[in-house]
Amino acid sequence: MHAPMRDPITLSIAAVDRSREPDLRARLDAKAKPPGSLGRLEDLAVQLGLIWHPAPPRADRAMVFVFAGDHGIAEESISPYPASVTRLMVGAYLAGRAGLNVLARAASAEIRVVDAGVDADLAPHPELIDRKIRRGSRNSVREAALTPSEAMGAIAAAARLVSDEIASGVDIVAIGEMGIGNTTAAALITHCLTGAPIDDCVGRGAGMDDAGLAHKRAVVATAAARAQPTEPLDVLTEFGGYDIAMMAGAVLGAAASQRPVVIDGFIASAAALVAVRLHPAARDYCVFSHRSAERGHRVLLEAMEATPYLDLGLRLGEGTGALTTVPLLRAAAGILNDLADLSDVLAGNFGPQA
Amino acid sequence: MHAPMRDPITLSIAAVDRSREPDLRARLDAKAKPPGSLGRLEDLAVQLGLIWHPAPPRADRAMVFVFAGDHGIAEESISPYPASVTRLMVGAYLAGRAGLNVLARAASAEIRVVDAGVDADLAPHPELIDRKIRRGSRNSVREAALTPSEAMGAIAAAARLVSDEIASGVDIVAIGEMGIGNTTAAALITHCLTGAPIDDCVGRGAGMDDAGLAHKRAVVATAAARAQPTEPLDVLTEFGGYDIAMMAGAVLGAAASQRPVVIDGFIASAAALVAVRLHPAARDYCVFSHRSAERGHRVLLEAMEATPYLDLGLRLGEGTGALTTVPLLRAAAGILNDLADLSDVLAGNFGPQA
Repeated sequence: MHAPMRDPITLSIAAVDRSREPDLRARLDAKAKPPGSLGRLEDLAVQLGLIWHPAPPRADRAMVFVFAGDHGIAEESISPYPASVTRLMVGAYLAGRAGLNVLARAASAEIRVVDAGVDADLAPHPELIDRKIRRGSRNSVREAALTPSEAMGAIAAAARLVSDEIASGVDIVAIGEMGIGNTTAAALITHCLTGAPIDDCVGRGAGMDDAGLAHKRAVVATAAARAQPTEPLDVLTEFGGYDIAMMAGAVLGAAASQRPVVIDGFIASAAALVAVRLHPAARDYCVFSHRSAERGHRVLLEAMEATPYLDLGLRLGEGTGALTTVPLLRAAAGILNDLADLSDVLAGNFGPQA
Repeated sequence: MHAPMRDPITLSIAAVDRSREPDLRARLDAKAKPPGSLGRLEDLAVQLGLIWHPAPPRADRAMVFVFAGDHGIAEESISPYPASVTRLMVGAYLAGRAGLNVLARAASAEIRVVDAGVDADLAPHPELIDRKIRRGSRNSVREAALTPSEAMGAIAAAARLVSDEIASGVDIVAIGEMGIGNTTAAALITHCLTGAPIDDCVGRGAGMDDAGLAHKRAVVATAAARAQPTEPLDVLTEFGGYDIAMMAGAVLGAAASQRPVVIDGFIASAAALVAVRLHPAARDYCVFSHRSAERGHRVLLEAMEATPYLDLGLRLGEGTGALTTVPLLRAAAGILNDLADLSDVLAGNFGPQA
């Protein structure tokens, strides 16, 4: 299951075989329910069936990877929270007391907390995975946030991490992030990769007021005036963070290992778009979980022709939206694997006998 | 926890104390997340907090009650499936092979299958709860579907069943149904209780084509011309089924025992409206799970000022939509109970130490 990961560009990702879809739809229509009556769960069942073909989909072990990294652009006052919150929230994850942990419990999912580039020397912890590239990215208003080799290294490290866990039996990968300033980085990535106007890409993030939002837009405009890359690795290098680069790598790692990867909200979707621009076939493995309340998410979803399953007004990150969707994947796999055929029901094969 | 259940009209149901809501909102705003960033999960957390006050909400044991009953109006050819499918699907539930079972597994919920009025002498089964009122309701095109005492008896039996399970430790009740013809019965109830035009109340059910839909509307119009009750028990008696009457009782039983009850789609919502018209305070305990694809559901949701959490195009029934929402209740309870306060995170109480 391991793919060679030295260079994410040469990673081998196979598109699913879409010619199997009519067969999967026919199997669903033969089940003991009115055709189509499980709505979008049937679409999800088809996607899982295509991903796992010819094996039946499994959806038992789910694992959320949360990548934490600081952003140099945070010094431009584009968040209501100080940058130190990134490392402090990592502490809350490890203590089991954050939104991430609550949602993971509700979804029966395991958690992997990854230090992608927190701006602090974190004490070792048995549940903290140290893949720190650097203590925070550079301020992209003034210079490229990452070096090209940092970006490549981050992608490769996360892809390896994910493919190793899949090799050990993980069925569902979910991705999330923590990084003060990362809605600003994601807005820049969204702007560069989609061409959407800056105002459509920038939102209130963790809660900027009107003046803060105007300032955030001006900061993004200043950074975007410095560089206008369009190639995904160039965009990631100029404006990304280590959290975003690693999420892109996680998407590629899951796709290379032919497993579904559940994408969280705005920032995770920006990472997914980087991954999909690098390897368009990776799109087949992405499950877009929820419609974030953050403004720029709509642009990313349209760019990837994605319709999320949930719309609950979430805008926390940490993988919380992805985790909310994990039970739907279990349901979808069960529909394909365990639901009886209507013909068996009509034949009375399950009784009860009158 | 047991309420006296001889007469559902005298059942004691206490409204939640809405004066606690600002305190609950303040507690959520103090958590380690941007205020409001968990969106509708926060609304759900508030509802659970109000229901459980002064205890913290629990959301561990979830149980779905599926009430099966046949409908005399099925002889008017208003379903693409024969009435025998009701009893055959009960067999599939008991064999663990239906949509109900798949969704219950995905939600880690227990199942109770109740024979409310299946038109067959079902063989005893350790997991089938026999509360049969009659072998199918009467054809409401010609006469009242239920007698008043049947309606009262069905409500009381289901309320007792639910309150007994709550007394034994169930935290979350979910309701669903099986009964060929029951979208027609639910349409009549919706029309009578809301005054909405028949065309807005009648949908394709299990899959009627255009001609079938026109015929179904005509059947509903004929029945509605025979009687025009507006009082909830009268409406239930004229047009209900035993499945619907028992779902109304289940709502009242959960509310009387101060536990949340997750309402499935169109038919379960019609039962919920009967319950809420009998006891308006029962509304406080209803969690409306999903927006069904069945046409009349919109009318019922508006009548109860309900905004469902999910919109996945489901229209199967069997409690499948309610079950899809159960993990959200677990998440909501966890947000209130387990999520750390931001002040503790900022104080560095969870490390990691730099």
